[in-house]
Amino acid sequence: MHILITGAAGMIGRKLTERLARDGALNGRAIDRLTLTDIVAPAPPAFAGSVDVSAADIAAPGEAAKLVAGRPDVVFHLAGIVSGEAELDVDKGYRVNLDGTRALWEALRAAGHRPRVVFTSSIAVFGAPFPAAIADDFHLTPLTSYGTQKAMCELMLADYTRRGFVDGVGIRLPSIVVRPGKPNKAASGFFSGIIREPLAGQEAVLPVAETVLHWHASPRSAVGFLIHAAGLSREEVGPRVNLTMPGVCCTVGEQIAALRRIAGDKVAARIRRAPDELVMRIVDGWPSRFDARRALALGFRVEATFDDIIRAHIEDELGGKIAA
Amino acid sequence: MHILITGAAGMIGRKLTERLARDGALNGRAIDRLTLTDIVAPAPPAFAGSVDVSAADIAAPGEAAKLVAGRPDVVFHLAGIVSGEAELDVDKGYRVNLDGTRALWEALRAAGHRPRVVFTSSIAVFGAPFPAAIADDFHLTPLTSYGTQKAMCELMLADYTRRGFVDGVGIRLPSIVVRPGKPNKAASGFFSGIIREPLAGQEAVLPVAETVLHWHASPRSAVGFLIHAAGLSREEVGPRVNLTMPGVCCTVGEQIAALRRIAGDKVAARIRRAPDELVMRIVDGWPSRFDARRALALGFRVEATFDDIIRAHIEDELGGKIAA
Repeated sequence: MHILITGAAGMIGRKLTERLARDGALNGRAIDRLTLTDIVAPAPPAFAGSVDVSAADIAAPGEAAKLVAGRPDVVFHLAGIVSGEAELDVDKGYRVNLDGTRALWEALRAAGHRPRVVFTSSIAVFGAPFPAAIADDFHLTPLTSYGTQKAMCELMLADYTRRGFVDGVGIRLPSIVVRPGKPNKAASGFFSGIIREPLAGQEAVLPVAETVLHWHASPRSAVGFLIHAAGLSREEVGPRVNLTMPGVCCTVGEQIAALRRIAGDKVAARIRRAPDELVMRIVDGWPSRFDARRALALGFRVEATFDDIIRAHIEDELGGKIAA
Repeated sequence: MHILITGAAGMIGRKLTERLARDGALNGRAIDRLTLTDIVAPAPPAFAGSVDVSAADIAAPGEAAKLVAGRPDVVFHLAGIVSGEAELDVDKGYRVNLDGTRALWEALRAAGHRPRVVFTSSIAVFGAPFPAAIADDFHLTPLTSYGTQKAMCELMLADYTRRGFVDGVGIRLPSIVVRPGKPNKAASGFFSGIIREPLAGQEAVLPVAETVLHWHASPRSAVGFLIHAAGLSREEVGPRVNLTMPGVCCTVGEQIAALRRIAGDKVAARIRRAPDELVMRIVDGWPSRFDARRALALGFRVEATFDDIIRAHIEDELGGKIAA
């Protein structure tokens, strides 16, 4: 089995690559070839089979066709620029997130072998005002250019799947928490930061109220979603190929309480309150709770509690150790 | 006031042009210039002001920029290929309906004067299975390439409006009935045909059961929707710029009963039943009833009954006369 991963140098892409390389199989079928690409060349994983890594801009003419020339059986399309950048640079956002994705769908259509395509969409396809829990049939109302581009790609994926050009599944990821690595400038960064920095002995800044409610899943769950999506049959998915993933819904206060339960008062005390009007306003427009019953019925699974999300971070990123 | 109409040679485009030329004003502001374009040059209307007509393919490089060089205050974007053609020719559908529309949004963004844009979308952005009445917050689930392209353009219109590049309103038209002219190959053609042909003394073919429920508005109402949409303030519309228009929901049997009431048994007897499995299957996937409360609250108005739709046709197309 040959697997193509775009955006393979990103956080989720790296974790997915590592998992596939380690398992040597995807949903029971042995993997013999990995094609990994991103705007910068991904690091090749330790893997017994064949690995091609490349730096490519899939929106550039001919690049997508080159990537799919090896006729991958499964394509994980994770490449894209993030929300903040898409909002700052309109042209780049539409070029990379929409035109790049469309170029990939077109290249796969031209290749003609109808691979399973797993596309990472986002809950940013939804925009306020929201009902108490966003159902699977809630309309697409993005309030960012990023969310708009993701929604447009979802629609095209559904159409190209219906027409038999690709065999698509789009998954709308919750906020992925706890993100490993350094703090970043994303408005959502604090959701990870208030857990990651205290566990590493550092101070974290909390720019919003503890009452803020949000929808979370661990990086480990995100990889699980991708792998599960690759294994679903066309019949199970049906014509509505884009699915809101399950998540853990909790407030910032509940996140902090979970941190305190797991790591103690001293660690939780490393969170400094510094209200930021801009971040508060941005976060206000985000969805916070979903009724993801279709994904659950299809077998997608997420952590049961935020405690589990913290434990996954400690196991996967900290070797089980917390900074006292 | 300068008005640009794309798709001005089409049925709705011609009627909108005639109405604007006759009124000489749009929502209380005098019109001094009309720019009319389509893939074939529209016929210039009798109009006191300046009229430019042109044949243009807005998807072709530079064409959209030329069209908006005169900085129109209001743009009615009706151009596009129809559902059946978009389904048969994937590339043409995406090129004309998506890329052409995007080129227009981009040209308006580049022009920088932020005109009101009224975009004709379609209830084809929705696909079965449906609730009993489709609410304004029902998700976009097109089951045709045409519906997909319209939904993608809606999303982009909302984003470009939010960013201040254009001032957009998208209106999802019901099936427009009674279409004047010759029978066409559209699967929906019979909804008009079973009224139009009998009133003109011709036989009409009915390919579906009388229980089929559908969502209708007259061409006169469609023009009314466009004009009303042009006059709404940005504040009234808000961030959800795409609106399902009101319609008359009735069964084919109710359509025929209305025809009998207005024109008599002899006229209604000109409908011949000839069930067609393909048409039945296509029509089965179409939405039939909407809860268009947002549009109604914003002042959009449609006929109260199907009788009124037939009367509008007799007045507007038949000079008040029915073939005995």
